[in-house]
Amino acid sequence: MEQQTQTKVKSEVVNGVNVDELFGTINAVKTAPVIAKFRFRAENEWMGGGHNRTTIKNFYGTQQDHKRKEPFVLDADEPPILLGGDKGPNPVEYALTALAACVTTSIVYHAAAKGITIRSMESRLEGDIDLQGFLGIRKDVPRGYKEIRMFVKIDADAPPEKLEEIVQLGPTYSPVYDTITRAVPVTVKLDQ
Amino acid sequence: MEQQTQTKVKSEVVNGVNVDELFGTINAVKTAPVIAKFRFRAENEWMGGGHNRTTIKNFYGTQQDHKRKEPFVLDADEPPILLGGDKGPNPVEYALTALAACVTTSIVYHAAAKGITIRSMESRLEGDIDLQGFLGIRKDVPRGYKEIRMFVKIDADAPPEKLEEIVQLGPTYSPVYDTITRAVPVTVKLDQ
Repeated sequence: MEQQTQTKVKSEVVNGVNVDELFGTINAVKTAPVIAKFRFRAENEWMGGGHNRTTIKNFYGTQQDHKRKEPFVLDADEPPILLGGDKGPNPVEYALTALAACVTTSIVYHAAAKGITIRSMESRLEGDIDLQGFLGIRKDVPRGYKEIRMFVKIDADAPPEKLEEIVQLGPTYSPVYDTITRAVPVTVKLDQ
Repeated sequence: MEQQTQTKVKSEVVNGVNVDELFGTINAVKTAPVIAKFRFRAENEWMGGGHNRTTIKNFYGTQQDHKRKEPFVLDADEPPILLGGDKGPNPVEYALTALAACVTTSIVYHAAAKGITIRSMESRLEGDIDLQGFLGIRKDVPRGYKEIRMFVKIDADAPPEKLEEIVQLGPTYSPVYDTITRAVPVTVKLDQ
């Protein structure tokens, strides 16, 4: 029994991802594409100055609402040099976090689907912003990131010449990479 | 003396933002634009499956490196329906967090610069993703957000007909709003 369980785990899980479930999901989506439609949500409360708090709890997907028992609470603030109290990462650092997490997960899941074992992975990111845009000093300077660079160190069960290919699974499939590089429509409206 | 201090605080701080310092920064940048060049950074470590951890500590700006005493540590994971262990918000929820925080702060800072007092502000965001893109099932379906919507409730010292104008300071100046809507170049490379 123990032997059987061990064999079962070995055959199904790659990189901590249950590959049987992953292919099950892919097949289910092919049969009924509507289950792939997700709506993610966030709520934010201004706390004063550069400090505000985002709460993440519910999302919709597979034709139903999903609710965590406890919400995730994320504080954002600005560092003192940007007139804040440094009670959390600032918003553009959260954007790098989203990108880092998403590219990493996309590499892990898609490598798992290909049967490639990843032993370890870490990355560093940097992004350039000229605050003349945000401050409204120059209209020809973008307010957001001019460019973002991500460097990935990876140890995988693959020949060295295949590693760059594995890393490129990230930008190829990552939803946040796509969101940042594609120009996604965002509407911001008064709700009152 | 007490009276003087109170008057001083009243004249300088709007919405928790030191407006004298804000205009001081704007004037300093006009004189020496190079101090407005910032580089933000993040480091990420894969923890297994959909779980990874981002550390935020250093950034560069005003021609020097800035380092927090303690790093901010942010865990990302996927919920069970997306084959994760739910140890944190997922990457696309972090993207909504970045946007919520940035639009909020942009409204607060730019309202402060205009002398508009905000008494309270909260918002909710939703974004639609069709996972057929991420799963590689359909190439014509975007991998990231199809659209993001943000609804802002605000109580400010302004007539009701001015509130939408105050809210629009967010998308007008927010670096993350700009990063998501503009198509920012992102490079992802093997680092070994």
